[in-house]
Amino acid sequence: MDIVRVGICGLGTVGGGTLQVLQESSSEISARTRTQVQVVHIGARREKPDYDLSGIRISQDIFEVANDPDVDVLVETIGGIEPAKSLVLQAIANGKDVVTANKALIAEHGNELLEAAEKAGVTLSFEAAVAGAIPVIRALRDGLSGNQIKELAGIINGTGNFILTEMRDHGRAYEDVLQEAQELGYAEADPTFDVEGIDAAHKLCILASIAYGIPLAFDEVYTEGISKIQKSDVLFAEELGYRIKHLGIAKRTDKGIEVRVHPTLIPEEVLLSKVEGVMNAVWIDGDASGPTLYYGAGAGALPTASSIVSDIVEIARSRQAGFAVSVPPLGVDLANQKNLPVLPIGECKTAFFMHITAANKSGVMLAITKVLTEAGVSIDAMIQKEAEPGSNHVPIALVTSVALESVLNSAVEKIEALEEIVKPLVRFRVEALEA
Amino acid sequence: MDIVRVGICGLGTVGGGTLQVLQESSSEISARTRTQVQVVHIGARREKPDYDLSGIRISQDIFEVANDPDVDVLVETIGGIEPAKSLVLQAIANGKDVVTANKALIAEHGNELLEAAEKAGVTLSFEAAVAGAIPVIRALRDGLSGNQIKELAGIINGTGNFILTEMRDHGRAYEDVLQEAQELGYAEADPTFDVEGIDAAHKLCILASIAYGIPLAFDEVYTEGISKIQKSDVLFAEELGYRIKHLGIAKRTDKGIEVRVHPTLIPEEVLLSKVEGVMNAVWIDGDASGPTLYYGAGAGALPTASSIVSDIVEIARSRQAGFAVSVPPLGVDLANQKNLPVLPIGECKTAFFMHITAANKSGVMLAITKVLTEAGVSIDAMIQKEAEPGSNHVPIALVTSVALESVLNSAVEKIEALEEIVKPLVRFRVEALEA
Repeated sequence: MDIVRVGICGLGTVGGGTLQVLQESSSEISARTRTQVQVVHIGARREKPDYDLSGIRISQDIFEVANDPDVDVLVETIGGIEPAKSLVLQAIANGKDVVTANKALIAEHGNELLEAAEKAGVTLSFEAAVAGAIPVIRALRDGLSGNQIKELAGIINGTGNFILTEMRDHGRAYEDVLQEAQELGYAEADPTFDVEGIDAAHKLCILASIAYGIPLAFDEVYTEGISKIQKSDVLFAEELGYRIKHLGIAKRTDKGIEVRVHPTLIPEEVLLSKVEGVMNAVWIDGDASGPTLYYGAGAGALPTASSIVSDIVEIARSRQAGFAVSVPPLGVDLANQKNLPVLPIGECKTAFFMHITAANKSGVMLAITKVLTEAGVSIDAMIQKEAEPGSNHVPIALVTSVALESVLNSAVEKIEALEEIVKPLVRFRVEALEA
Repeated sequence: MDIVRVGICGLGTVGGGTLQVLQESSSEISARTRTQVQVVHIGARREKPDYDLSGIRISQDIFEVANDPDVDVLVETIGGIEPAKSLVLQAIANGKDVVTANKALIAEHGNELLEAAEKAGVTLSFEAAVAGAIPVIRALRDGLSGNQIKELAGIINGTGNFILTEMRDHGRAYEDVLQEAQELGYAEADPTFDVEGIDAAHKLCILASIAYGIPLAFDEVYTEGISKIQKSDVLFAEELGYRIKHLGIAKRTDKGIEVRVHPTLIPEEVLLSKVEGVMNAVWIDGDASGPTLYYGAGAGALPTASSIVSDIVEIARSRQAGFAVSVPPLGVDLANQKNLPVLPIGECKTAFFMHITAANKSGVMLAITKVLTEAGVSIDAMIQKEAEPGSNHVPIALVTSVALESVLNSAVEKIEALEEIVKPLVRFRVEALEA
C-alpha cells in the first residue's frame, strides 16, 4: 500500500483537529483511499503535549515543512494572509498539493495561488474555507455540475446567525447578545470580521466563483453587516411573515452576477429561515436540480478538520490512481472562466423592507405611497401601528415589490425628504428564495 | 477537445430529462470537463418528437447501445430489474462506464454489478438512485470521507412525506391524501412501493453501504410502511412535541449496524422535521463533522437528470485526465468492505411512542407503568385524555425511554394482555436525532 505523506503547518484548533481525525479514522481513511495517509511533519511554534506526535518531525519554521521532500501534501492552518501565502506558494513551487481552510487567503489571493497550482500541476483545495463541515464546495463543483446555478443564498457566518437567533427568540438587543457571543467564544474581541460581513464576503466570493465559473472577485462583493439591526426590525419582520438572516447571496441575471452580503428578510416558511444559532446552511437553486440546501456546523476544530480531511482523501485517491486531482478547484480551469461582470449594488434587484417612523399626521401614508408609486414600486405588505402613549410618532413597516436598487434608493431619499419622516429610515433587502 | 460519447437507454421522464440537461448546459459541461459530452445513441422503443434527436442514432433494441463501440458511457433509465440488469452487465462487459438512477437494481443486485465493474475497470455510478437531485452519495462518499458515520436518517420517499405532511397540516386521513397523491401523479396506482417503504429501503440500503463500508444488504433492511398511521397518532405526536416522518435510518452500534425504514417520531425542533411535502432530506451525523443535512427534490425529470449528469461529468473529468474514476462507487473497493452485521430489528435500540386505548377505570395507568418499570423502561412523557362523551375508553399516549426493541416488544405484549386495554395498541419508534 502506498503512503501519502502529510505535513501540517499550524497546530492550533484546526491543525490539531486535523491531526486528531487523521489518527482516529486512519483505518477508514486507508480503506477509502487504498493508501496510508500519514502525518510526517508538523510546523508549529509551540509544543502541544495534547497530541501524539511520535514519529512526526516537528519544525518551528513552517517553511521547513514546505521544503521537506518527504511531504506530499501540505495542510495550511495558520490563517491570515502572510506568511500563509508565501508558505502555500513555496509548497506549490515544490510540487506539493496544498489543502487550506483559509478563506481570506483564497478569496483575496486565490487567483494568483490557483494559477501557480495549475502551472505546477498540483491541487489547491479549500473545502474547509466555506461553511466548516458542510461539503458545499463539492456540492457546487461536483454534485450540481450539470446545472446552471440560478441563485445561492447562505448563512455562512455562525456568529452573526447566533446573534440574530437570540435577538428574535428572546427579544434581546444586538449589543447584549454580541457580548454574550464574545464570552462564549463565538465572537472575537474585535468582532468586525464577523458582524460587518467580511468573513461572509470571503466565503461568498469563493462560492460565487464556483457557481458561475468566474474569477475570485473579493473586492466586488457588496458587504453590509448586522450591527444596525434593531430589536424592533426583527419583530416587524416577524409580523410580516419574515425572518432576518445575514445572508451571502449570489444570483445570475441577464446583466451579470449579483454578489452581496447583507441582512435579508426571507419568508419564515422556507427551510433556510429555520437554521438557528451558530449553524450554517447554503441554499442553492440550480436550473435542473431545483432548490437544494446544505446544513451543518460552520466552525470548530473537528467540523473544520472533517472538510480538510475530505480534501486530503480526494488527493490520496487521485495519487493512488496515479494522477493529479481531476477536478479543478473552482470547478473549471482558469482558462475556462467566464468574464461575467459582478454588478454594482445599485444595479441589483430586490424587494425592500422599510421601517419608517413618521409624525402622527394625516396624509403621511399618502405621501409615502405617492413617492413609491411614482418610482414604479408597489407595496406588497404593510403594518402601521398606533403611536406609543406620549409619542406623536407612529411606526410603519412595509415590504415593496422587487425593483432596481438605484430606483429604490431614490425613492428612499424622497421619503426621507418628507418633513413628517424621521431620518434615516431603516431598510433591509428581501429575498423570496423561491425555486 | 476530446469527446465523451454518451448512450441513453430509455427516453421516458428521466432519460428525456438527461438528454435535455446535456443539450441545454452543453457549454457549461464542456468548461467543467474540458471535453465535449455528446449523446450519440439512444435506445428507446418509441419515437419522441419532443426532443432534438438530430445526429443521434436511435435503436429500438437497447442492447444495440450497450454493444455500440462508439458509446463510452451508457445511461440506464429504463428502471426495474430486467432487462436493466442484463443491459448494465453487457455495457460493463464491453468496457463502458455506466450511470443509472435505478435504486432497485443497485440495492438488490449492486454487489454483483459492482464486482463486474471493478473487474472490468469501469465505473458504475448511481447518484440519482438516492434522493433525486440531492448529491447525498457524494456527500457520504467524498464530503464526509474523513468521518466515521454515527447515524443517518433520511426522508427519502417524497410520496410518503407528502401524505404525512397533509395529514398533519390539514388533519386529513391517510386514505384521503393517498388518493389525492395518486391524482397528482405523486403516487402510483399501486402505491405499495412508496407507502410500504420498499422504495425507501432500496435507497437506505445504498446509503448504509456507503456510510459503513458494508456490502449492499437489501434483504436485511427492516421495512415498515406508513399505511397504519392514524390522524390521532399524528395529533398525539404533535402534542408531545414530535412530528411523524417516514425515515430510513442507519446507525452504528457496538454490536453492528441498524438499518431500518419505519414511521418515526422526531422532535419538532430538528430541521429534518421541517421538511415538508414531496421534498427529500438526509441528516448525517459524522464523528468529526457533527450533524449535517442535505435537502432537495427527491424525484422529477430534471432533478433526477441533475444527478445523472453529475455522474457523467465525473466520468468525463476522469477520462480527460486519462484514467478511470478514482473513487469507488460505494466509497471503498469491494475487497475493503467490512463484515459488520446488520442487526435484526429486535436487537435495535429506540424509544417507543405508544398510543393506548384503555377502559376508563382506576388502576389502568398503574398497571401500564408497572409493566414498563418491570421491563426497566421508564416513561419520558405522557398524555391521558378524558373519555369522549358516550365512550367508556380513554386514550393514553406516552413516550418511553430508549430500550432494546425485544424488551419493548415483551412489554407491549404484557400491556396488551391487560384486560382493560384495547388490542393491538399502536406504537411507533422515536429518534432524538441529537448530535
